[in-house]
Formats: sequence, structure tokens, C-alpha cells
Amino acid sequence: MSILTRPILEIDFGNLLDNYQQLRTIAGKATAAAVVKDDAYGLGAREVAQMLYNKGGCRHFFVAHAIEADRIADLIPQAKIYVLQGIGEDSLELFQRNRQLIPVIGSPQMFAFWKTHKISGIKPVIQIETGLNRLGFREHELKAMDEKDLGEFSMVLSHLACGDEKDHFMNTHQLENFDSLKNLYFPDVPASLSASDGVFLGEKFHWDMVRLGAAMYGINTAPYRPNQMKNVVRIKAPVLQIEPLPKGDFVGYSATYRASSERKIAIVSIGYGDGIPRSLSNVGKVFFRTHGQLHEARMIGRISMDNIICDVTNIDGLEVGDMAFLADNFYTLDDMGRDAGTISYEIMSRVGKNTRFIRTKKSAS
Amino acid sequence: MSILTRPILEIDFGNLLDNYQQLRTIAGKATAAAVVKDDAYGLGAREVAQMLYNKGGCRHFFVAHAIEADRIADLIPQAKIYVLQGIGEDSLELFQRNRQLIPVIGSPQMFAFWKTHKISGIKPVIQIETGLNRLGFREHELKAMDEKDLGEFSMVLSHLACGDEKDHFMNTHQLENFDSLKNLYFPDVPASLSASDGVFLGEKFHWDMVRLGAAMYGINTAPYRPNQMKNVVRIKAPVLQIEPLPKGDFVGYSATYRASSERKIAIVSIGYGDGIPRSLSNVGKVFFRTHGQLHEARMIGRISMDNIICDVTNIDGLEVGDMAFLADNFYTLDDMGRDAGTISYEIMSRVGKNTRFIRTKKSAS
Repeated sequence: MSILTRPILEIDFGNLLDNYQQLRTIAGKATAAAVVKDDAYGLGAREVAQMLYNKGGCRHFFVAHAIEADRIADLIPQAKIYVLQGIGEDSLELFQRNRQLIPVIGSPQMFAFWKTHKISGIKPVIQIETGLNRLGFREHELKAMDEKDLGEFSMVLSHLACGDEKDHFMNTHQLENFDSLKNLYFPDVPASLSASDGVFLGEKFHWDMVRLGAAMYGINTAPYRPNQMKNVVRIKAPVLQIEPLPKGDFVGYSATYRASSERKIAIVSIGYGDGIPRSLSNVGKVFFRTHGQLHEARMIGRISMDNIICDVTNIDGLEVGDMAFLADNFYTLDDMGRDAGTISYEIMSRVGKNTRFIRTKKSAS
Repeated sequence: MSILTRPILEIDFGNLLDNYQQLRTIAGKATAAAVVKDDAYGLGAREVAQMLYNKGGCRHFFVAHAIEADRIADLIPQAKIYVLQGIGEDSLELFQRNRQLIPVIGSPQMFAFWKTHKISGIKPVIQIETGLNRLGFREHELKAMDEKDLGEFSMVLSHLACGDEKDHFMNTHQLENFDSLKNLYFPDVPASLSASDGVFLGEKFHWDMVRLGAAMYGINTAPYRPNQMKNVVRIKAPVLQIEPLPKGDFVGYSATYRASSERKIAIVSIGYGDGIPRSLSNVGKVFFRTHGQLHEARMIGRISMDNIICDVTNIDGLEVGDMAFLADNFYTLDDMGRDAGTISYEIMSRVGKNTRFIRTKKSAS
């Protein structure tokens, strides 16, 4: 028996690199850019970018904010870093300081700002709207631009709304829109339409550059078939205490669970403060390994900031100090996302930012 | 019109200090300890602890993990830091290195570990179970301890399950349990039962030390009446683009919103990557100020990692670069938590850990 208190987050950088390379193969001739926004989905943008640059040969990176580009630029000196949220008064200086940063211009107003503050040697990317109705120039705005303005850009970009549903009508709808707008307004520049999910929709969706994010981090962006990516994130936490729960007793805040018969509970040292969604209260799964076998247990009561309580009535041989497995190859963040009523992206982004974990990693060889 | 891209997180340290002082007054003779676990609920444990120590005179702090205590200890040299998750093999060295750290022992197994690794000069706290069924000694375990073991502790502690519901039967139930166990097993040591919520339940719940967390951060831990605490967190983000949304068009990932009439939408530069819960998709509220008036808008479509789309059809005069207010005095994190199907604690913990915000602060004078 051990006495342990801290949760453990393991990031498998080897699998992350393998995923990048597998996706690059699927993407064929398209340039394989890596999306490292939101601190590489929480996993650590500096480490991820450096590895993809040094070991994966990646030379094109996407972030959301210029400040995120600024934080990784020194590690990837020959790379271009595209900034999806674009350029503004609050980021201009970062673009001026580092010519690796390339703004993605998403609106006429931002383009007007760009024209006033143009940085010599930089040709921005233009984002166009094809069906997501998020950032991007609408067709009436493209129509209003003259030849010279349209010639300002080095790439045209759009983003799929439903790329994770293979046969969603939106995919062909957006592909047709993109194709027609590109041919009309940007016939001579490279194009990028797809993130991870679009890569799996076939060559027509690849264009000149794909933007690899979620799938590279092990998320199944093609949930209509088993995940072809390797798992990157594992989370475990030690059992602090095992106790009988008398019949009729309540568990956790607001007493949302009541034992209808005597149970055995385990208190596990991880909570929503560590990024485990509180919406898993009374529904989430936790796994334990005893006598060489894997056992599934249910979270009971409300998840609290630092602890989760599990019903381990049927698990013999469990001891204080044993590990509870929250996410692993057999129960991924995709599974947890489904159980929590959200997506793995959100959980990964939360978990990775927490500083109470013992962080371990498997390095890429 | 401005072109801005980054979200802004404002932490009002002045209000935080005022809350601490107000709570201390309510707590009367009880020692007012501050709970700064989970990086002070995401707001920054170093800054919060230092301020409460220097300007609030606070000398007792609670964290969950020893590593959290280790990160603030140098700033609060005369303070005691209680570690709620206790002590184990993975934290022993931190306790040995710094005698400010005091473990809260929550199980017989951990107590056995303590007895083998005892640190001279330190008397741990014992946590006892009174109804939450989380960490803590059960009565049968207290019964099994001898006089000498029971004399090892400097304080006895428990935690309320339903302190935020004034008349919940659990409150008196736990108070009676605590009272009887303390008198039986720890008649001569100080006692602590209440966190913020218990402070409002009256003097009987105060005992010798209260542990001030949520309410100090502005959360309403007594939701049965208007919040008496001052608001600490404000979140805003710039509008990147404003566009018409044609009738029949879809918005966002998986096309979960469809316009039943022509609408006007604003794309706001903040998303779940910044800690805004994705469960606010299609239900969350965003506020805008135009012509000196506050307007409420609805989030439409799925929240994405970096952007939120709002229906601003009825808001005249809104411009690109205007601020969207996500959380403020008029719509607090408590309100957002309710709309998101969770509690403000979880959102605060997420928001505060994000590194893409421009962080501004109002200092305590």
C-alpha cells in the first residue's frame, strides 16, 4: 500500500508525433500545418511546436492569438505562424517585431486596419465564409474589393462546420462555395479549407494546406468509424480512502446521491479543479485495476474541486494508494466528453492547463 | 471603431480584500483562514495570498496539495498553510523542507504514514466525517485510536455538504455529529467546521476557525438571499465582426442553429479555450453597451475554442471593436454558472488558468 495524494497527467509525445505523420501521409501533397492554439489544446504549445518542428519537419503552424505565436516563435525560427484571430491594435506590435507571424484577416474592418498598418514583406491570409457563419469575408464583401486589394493575400482559407460527419450536406455545400469563391476572387493563390476532420473527407478537401489539430492530439475527428489516431492523454489519480457507505447515507455537496443499500466508496484525489468536468457528477466512469483486471466504477455525488467519490462496491482487493484511471487508451477523452455532455477538445483544453498534476511524458524517439 | 482581438480578464483585488474583511467580521471571534487552493480558484494564489497576508493580516491559509503550499510559502513566511489532501510519498519532501506546511490527515492509512514519517514540531490536523462522506475519519476509526494517537492533532476539522441551503436538514445533522465527535475524541483542541457558506449559518457553525474561499472570491455561497459579497471577476472580449445572417442559414459547428428569419450576428473573440463553458452553446447570454445602454444578446450555435457568435439583431449602433461583456457586476459568474448548468466555482477555476487573456487588475488600496 502506498500513500499518494497527487493526480498524474501523462502526455504521449511519441503518439502525438506519430499522429502528425499519419495525418500528413493521408493529406498527400497538401502541406501539413500544425494547429497549436490554446497552448496546443492545453498540452503545452512550446513543447509540441518544438517537437513537430525538429522531429516532424513541420514548418507551418496555426495559433488563435498573436501572443500565442510570440510564445513559441523562438523555438521554430524557420516556421511561419498563422494567427487565426488576426491582427489588431492589441497585437500589432507583436507582428511588427516578428516577421514569422502572418495574420489571417477575417473582416473588411480588419483589412482596413491592415492596410493602414501594413508590415513590409508580409502577405496576410484571407478567411472567407462558406457556411460556418463565423469569422470570414462574406461574398458581398469580396465583391466590393478591387483587384489590388484581392492581390494582397498569400492564401485563402475557410473552415468546415460539419467535417466530422462524413455525409453531412454542409460538407459539399461548403466545398462548392469555397471552390467557386476561390476561382472567382483568388484564382492564383494557395488555399486551405480543412482542419483534421476535413483530412478524412478525401482529396477534394485537402487543397494546398491542411491544418492538423484535434486528430493530432488523438481526438477522433471521424467518429463515424473507430479512431485511427493514437491516444495522447492519460489521467490517473490515487485513491485516498476506502470506506463503507451505510444504507441511507448521502454523498457529496447538496446530498445528490443517497445509498439505497450499503455500498463501498473510494475517494479519489482529483476534481474539477484539475479539469475533470463537474457535469460528470453521478454519471462519470472511473476505472481501477486489481488482480490484473480492469474494473469500471461509477462516480457518485457531486464532483468537488479536489475529489471524486466512486462506488467501488464490486471491486475486490482495491487498496488506498491504488490508481484510479480517469482517461486512458481504453477510455479516452472522447469517451469522457460523451459522458460529460461535451467534447474531448474542451476537456483537454482544461486538463492541460492545470498545475497540480504530476506531469509525465513519453517522448518521441 | 477599434480593431481588437484579445479577451480581457479583470480581477478586482480590492473587492476580494473587502470580501475577506467583511467575512472576518461576520465570523466574529473565529480565526479567518483563507482558502487559496486550485491557484486561488484560478485567480492566482501567489498574488491573492500575498495580498491577504500583507493587507488583510491573514496568517492561516488552506490549499489542497502540498505543491500549492510550496508555491506560495515564500510570500507568507509567518503563516501556517494547511494541506487538505494531506501528506503522502509524493509530497513528504515538501513538508520536510518547510515547517509552515501542516497536513490534514483524512484516513487511518494516512495517519499510519504520518506516524512513520513524523516531522518534529508539526502537529497535524485531523479531518473527521460528519455527513459529506468524502475524506475524513469515520467514527469506528476514531474509536479504534488510543489516547496517544488522539493527542497527536492540533485541530479537528470537518466540512459541510449543504451549507449553501440555510434550512437543509444536513446542516444541523452535521453540526450535531461534529459537536459530539469533537467532545468525545478531541475535547481540548480547536475546531473548524465551516467554509464560506457555513459562516452565514450563524455563530454555532463558526467554532475556532472558518475557511474563507468562494465567498471571498465573490461567489454567492448564500444563494437564498442577494449576494452580500462584492464582485471580483469581470470578463470581456472584443467584437471581431458583425454580419447579416440570411434566413435559413446555419451557425457554428454541427449546424445547431438555423436562422428562422434574417438576423444580425456578432463574432466575439473568446471561446471555451478561454474557459467559457461550451454548455452555454445556444443558451448563454452576452451583454453589449451602446448609446449608454446595456443590451442582452443570446449566444447562438456551438461555442468554439476561440469564438462565440451572438444574435445582435436588436442592438443598434454596435460596432466592430466594441466590447462584449461575458461576466460583470450585472451578470456574475454565478449567473453564468446557472445558465451553463454548473456552478461559478468551476468556471472561475477554468477562466483564471487561461493565458490568452489580457489580465488587468484593480488593486487593493
